[in-house]
This record gives sequence, C-alpha cells and structure tokens, in this order.
Amino acid sequence: MEKIKLGLIGLGTVGTGVYKSVQNFDNIEIAKIAVKNINKPRSVDVPQSMLTDNPYDIVNDPTIDIVVELMGGVEPAWSYIKTAIQNGKHIVTANKELLAKKGEELFNLSEEHNCVVLYEAAIAGGIPLIMPIKTIMAGNKINKIQAILNGTTNYILTKMDVDGASYEDVLKEAQELGYAETDPTGDVEGFDAAYKITTLATIAFNSRTKFENVYREGITKIRKEDMKKANELGYKIKLIASATIDDKNNADVRVHPMLVPQDCTLAHIDYVTNAVAISGYPIGDILLSGPGAGESPTTSSVMGDILSIARAWKTTDYLLPMMRCHHHEISNPVKIDDTYNKYYISITAPNGIGLIAKIGQICAEKDVSLASISSDSDDVTARITVITDKCLERNIKEVIANLDGCTISSLIRVME
Amino acid sequence: MEKIKLGLIGLGTVGTGVYKSVQNFDNIEIAKIAVKNINKPRSVDVPQSMLTDNPYDIVNDPTIDIVVELMGGVEPAWSYIKTAIQNGKHIVTANKELLAKKGEELFNLSEEHNCVVLYEAAIAGGIPLIMPIKTIMAGNKINKIQAILNGTTNYILTKMDVDGASYEDVLKEAQELGYAETDPTGDVEGFDAAYKITTLATIAFNSRTKFENVYREGITKIRKEDMKKANELGYKIKLIASATIDDKNNADVRVHPMLVPQDCTLAHIDYVTNAVAISGYPIGDILLSGPGAGESPTTSSVMGDILSIARAWKTTDYLLPMMRCHHHEISNPVKIDDTYNKYYISITAPNGIGLIAKIGQICAEKDVSLASISSDSDDVTARITVITDKCLERNIKEVIANLDGCTISSLIRVME
Repeated sequence: MEKIKLGLIGLGTVGTGVYKSVQNFDNIEIAKIAVKNINKPRSVDVPQSMLTDNPYDIVNDPTIDIVVELMGGVEPAWSYIKTAIQNGKHIVTANKELLAKKGEELFNLSEEHNCVVLYEAAIAGGIPLIMPIKTIMAGNKINKIQAILNGTTNYILTKMDVDGASYEDVLKEAQELGYAETDPTGDVEGFDAAYKITTLATIAFNSRTKFENVYREGITKIRKEDMKKANELGYKIKLIASATIDDKNNADVRVHPMLVPQDCTLAHIDYVTNAVAISGYPIGDILLSGPGAGESPTTSSVMGDILSIARAWKTTDYLLPMMRCHHHEISNPVKIDDTYNKYYISITAPNGIGLIAKIGQICAEKDVSLASISSDSDDVTARITVITDKCLERNIKEVIANLDGCTISSLIRVME
Repeated sequence: MEKIKLGLIGLGTVGTGVYKSVQNFDNIEIAKIAVKNINKPRSVDVPQSMLTDNPYDIVNDPTIDIVVELMGGVEPAWSYIKTAIQNGKHIVTANKELLAKKGEELFNLSEEHNCVVLYEAAIAGGIPLIMPIKTIMAGNKINKIQAILNGTTNYILTKMDVDGASYEDVLKEAQELGYAETDPTGDVEGFDAAYKITTLATIAFNSRTKFENVYREGITKIRKEDMKKANELGYKIKLIASATIDDKNNADVRVHPMLVPQDCTLAHIDYVTNAVAISGYPIGDILLSGPGAGESPTTSSVMGDILSIARAWKTTDYLLPMMRCHHHEISNPVKIDDTYNKYYISITAPNGIGLIAKIGQICAEKDVSLASISSDSDDVTARITVITDKCLERNIKEVIANLDGCTISSLIRVME
C-alpha cells in the first residue's frame, strides 16, 4: 500500500507527539519536517535527512499530500498554508489565530482547490468538538454556545478562588509553573478565547463571525474580593466565551468574565480543563469537557484529523464536502452596548445616609431593575454589592457614569 | 437531484421527530413508514399511502436506500434488519438491546453486504459519542469508560438524594410522571445500561465485549439511609456503567451502583442527564454529557446518522469503512469476583463490646484493609459503616459470609 505522506511544519511538543503517534499507523508516514534549527538536539530520534529549515520545501514538495501546520501565528504560517493549498495539499492545523483572522480566505481558497482544512486541535484541545458539530450534529440548529476555552485563565481564576489569592500573585505562580507565558497578554486579555469562539461560532451557526466583531474583555481586573463575594452569592467567576444567534442571523459573540451560578456545570470546570456547552434544536443541551491543551490531547486531535483525511483519501466528491467549512453567509454582529445582561457591580463610596437610595434611584431612572443590593460598611467606607436583573448594557454604562462620588471597583456580567 | 429514500420502522415519538426533521433537508425523503396500526390518529399529518403495517414492505422495497429502525427489542426487529441488509440497505437504529445481543452477527452481515449500520441514538441519546470515537478519537488507545447511561435510574437516585425519599416512593412518582415504565425492570435492574456499555466498550476498545459477560446489578436495594451516609462521607450514589481493558485484552465491563466522590463530575450529573467519561492515550480524560433520551435529542442523533450516510452516498470504498464497526477481536471477560474494588458496607448487629474488633479481625484475615469504620449505635443495635481500601471482590464476599450475627444492609462499590 502506498502511504499518505505528511509534511510537518513545527516540531515542538505537539509536533513531537504527532511524529511519535504516526509510527503506529501503516497508511501514513512523515516525509519532511520544517524546523527553525535543524541542528537542535531533540527528544525524538528524527532522521536528519527528514529535516529542513525551509517550510517551502514542504509546501512545494509534489510528493507530500497533507501539510500539518503546528507553528502558530498568522504570518508566515498563512503564506505557507496558502502555497500548500494552491499546490493541492490538504491542511491540518492547530492555529486558532490564523483560523479566526484568515478563516474566510482560507476556506474559500481550499474550496477553490478542492482541499480540506481540518482544525480539531485549534479549539478546546483534545475535546471532540469540530467534527461532531460538522457530522453527527449536522441535523441541528445550534443557537447558543457557552464555553471555557482558555486553560491559562481558568487555572488562574481557579487558584484565585481556591487560595483566596490575588490575580497578580497567581499569575506569577502560573508563569513559574509554565501555565502562563512570560507575556501573558494573549491569554489573560482574552485573545486566545476570542480566536477560538470566532471559529466555533462560525461553524456552529453556519454563518461567519468576523474576529473584529467579537467583544473581548480579560481577567486582569478581577479582584480576590470579587471571588469571595461571588462565592457568598452562589457563583464562581469564569472567563466565558459565548455565542448566540437569533432567527435573523444576528450573532452576539464575546469573551468576558462572568459570575456563573454554582448549579451550572461550567462553574465546576476547574484549572486547565476546557468545556463547551452547546444548545440547539432538536439536540437540547450538551456539554463536552476535557483537556484544552497540552501535548497529548492536542496530538490526539491532530491525529484524528490526519486519520480522517487518510480514510477519505481520493473521495473528493463525497466525503470532503462533509469536512469542509462553507459559510457563505456572514452573520450580523450585535454590539455589546445593545445586549441584555445581568450585572454584578461592586461599589465603594464614603459611607453616608441615602447612598443605597441614591444608587436605587439612578438605576430606576436608567431602567435598571435590581435583583439584590447589600452593603458591608464601616464608619468611613461603604462597600455595596449590586446584582441587577437583565438590562441593557448601554443603560448600565449610564448608571455607572452617573454614580458621582462612588468608585466602581468591579463590573462583571452574570450568567443566568 | 434524486433524493435518498428512507423507510421508517416505527412512528412513535422519535419516529415522529425524524419524520418532521427530514422535511428540512432536500437530499433525503421518507418513502414508507411501517406502523402497528395504520388507522391510529397521529400528531403528524402523514399521507395514508406512506403507511404500511408490514415492515417487509419496507425492507424488501428496492427503491428504499436506508432503513431507520425505531421499534426496539430483538425480535422481530432483527429479522427485518437482516432482510434489509441482505437487500443491500444501510441501517440507522436506536436499538441498544439488538446491538448488545446481535452486534457480532449484525456487523458481520453488514460487512458482507457492504452496508453501514449507524446507531448514535442507541447510546447516550443526543450526546455525540459513537461517531467521535470512530473518527476524531481514532488515533487513541481508549482504556477506560465510566458512564451514567440510564436516565430513569439517575432520575430516581437524584430524587432519593434530594428529597431523602425511599426507592419505592420515588419509583412510584417517576412512574406517574412517565420517567419510569409500568414494568421498570429494564431500567432499574441495569439491563438498559448494560446493553449500552456492551456496545460502547466494543467500539471504544476495538474488541468485542459479549453481553453475557457484562456484570449487572440494579438500584432496587439502595436505601435512603445509604444516600444519607454517602453524602456524609463525601459521595453521591450513581448507577455507573464502566469498562476497562488492559494490555492483554482483558475487559472488565459492568453496571452497578457506586459511591462516586463528590469531586468527580459524574457525581453531579443529575436527573435524566447522561454522561460518559472516557480515558485514553494520548487524549487524556474527556467527559461528554447531555440528554440521554427523549424525542428531540434522540431525533438529533438519528438525523445525524442519516445525514452522514447521505453525505457519503455511493462512496462505499472509502468513507464506509470509517463508519463500519470492525471487531474481529473478542476481549477476554474479567469475572467480577476477580476484580479489585473499594467497598461501602453497612452492617447492622446487636450492640455489644468487641463488634468492631470482630469486623476488623475478619477483614484482616481475608486481606481486606479498612479505610474507615464508624459506628452509630444505640443500646440495642449497632449500625456500622465500613469503607474498605481496594481489595478483591472474592475476599469481600468471604468477609460477608463470615460476619455471623451481623446483617449486611448494603454492600456498594466505591469509585476511586
């Protein structure tokens, strides 16, 4: 049997995992691997002749069938992938940023060249998510996703909760343990989760969401006091990537911290675990959870994609349409100011008679109904915690702008 | 475009859901439906000419491409399906009992006739489970499954826990609400879960487990006192379907109640929700949960299967192998007596000095190490709760046989 030939771009932890795993299958083989430094010592015994420091040696090699891109980032990965597709190669990638920012061009190009682009590993690591949505759940109209898609921030929030520690202290510890990067921006400011929900919303809703329309807020402002208060009120704080779509193709896609009720399973997804809750018709509500990153789970998903293409080999007319992403529709973005949410507001102000009445009045004027308001004050300072009913984001912003003399310590949305 | 023609056997809740859902797709159509009584009034408006009371009108109809069997039970469903496969038709079924008892013959026959048998709806209702295992997780060596696969028993156990009610009272309520059948044996004695884990173990391990080798124990002996005690000790009681396999193809597949630690997600899967925890290499641990039954989720899975076949239409050489079930290997069954487990034992005995010493001594003689032992006694009666370390099932049975003068109120295995 002639083996299907793979070219790997990148030989980090996942690339190494894929290299080892491929040895267990007799219908696929690795032909060439592009690395930065071909002389670097490695944990696997790769024949020197297989290595190149020029990815174009792979994407232009007519004997290579599938290009497995594991380098990340938009450029130069996008240039390599474009050339590979133009040369008729199928793509397996774990590159969530590329998918979010170049998805439309990428899938149009692959369509044009009759190639498949699979990316199970790019979203929620080892959790089987993309293929189930495209196959076994294809009969459904999915209208809502709520997910924990970033392991680093979930680790930090869990540790803050468990240890009663501050964001800064936990971040430092996470960096020392290798759970957070030296520059943690991509994770803690929600970019990583935003890349993932962009693509997930697009395939689940069968209508493209553009990355620039995804509202994004990170976890850097969450205080240990908020964690404590959330617990008292029956919530946990999580960085939630969410997407909803209505019958008129209006998609509300965003990433921000939320108070999650403790009777919701997402509240109990801790440390680096990821979870995706999907609602649709007729399926109802399902939850998929598992490791969101790491060599092994990511390798599992990359291998799953490679094997799916291998099994479907030379059946372009029939199987490949199933694997492709068609989103000729583009959803209408909903602006965050136009969304309705519940809010947790932590207010600090000089203590004085009439403070709660004042807050209540301003809220009433702006059509914001209060679910609860509580004060924890000493002689000098009042610390007031408000939970609102569902109200318009624009109105909440007006409430906040009108609370003269009060400091808004936190404003966090609350999951219903 | 010529539409793919479906024949439905059964037009109950799921059949009705499928009938309605098919109208949304332009590549499939329902050609014929077999029902018991063609004159019965129905909630959907089905043309009378589409109905037959003879399923052979469907399985022998040369124009029908896919037979969707939704009647359940081994016979006569098996006869209909056999004929359909012999006539070259693909099968979509939700029949877990048939799969468990006739799986080997069924998949051999379908292989011989180049047909596909899909059954996503048969196990864990709407949860995408079978297709992910066969596709995106195909690069993994799965070695362990722990699952809640029966909604009725999970509903009963949840209600017993929440309300502090007895099994009998909750069963009665569940029957009135339609969550349990008039004859609840199939659910409460663990048959339904055993059918499902038989097939699930077979495909996950790629090695056939035979139904007769699955150990099975139901929930009818669980007392409200056990629920209370389990909570005190940090557990919940759940009916767990489990399967493990070792490197020598020894498969330990069983269904029985377990004390599940409260820090395990399965402990929090409540009411009619199902959940499947899968461990493998390289994927690690994942959890899939969602609605285990009901018209809508089951319809979703049946439609997913139908659409998978429709997409792969006329590609028998390439796609169909992926969808098929090959298990030419048969796993070696592990007898329950040869398994190692932790146990919860509730013992009642006349109160007297030396009782705990006696229990401790008998356990020690039989190589059973105790993790904890506590007594809750009045002047007359001692109620002793033992949690053992992991020990051989055979030895526990000997301990129990040797506890003269003691009544064993409960013996329940404990999840680690």
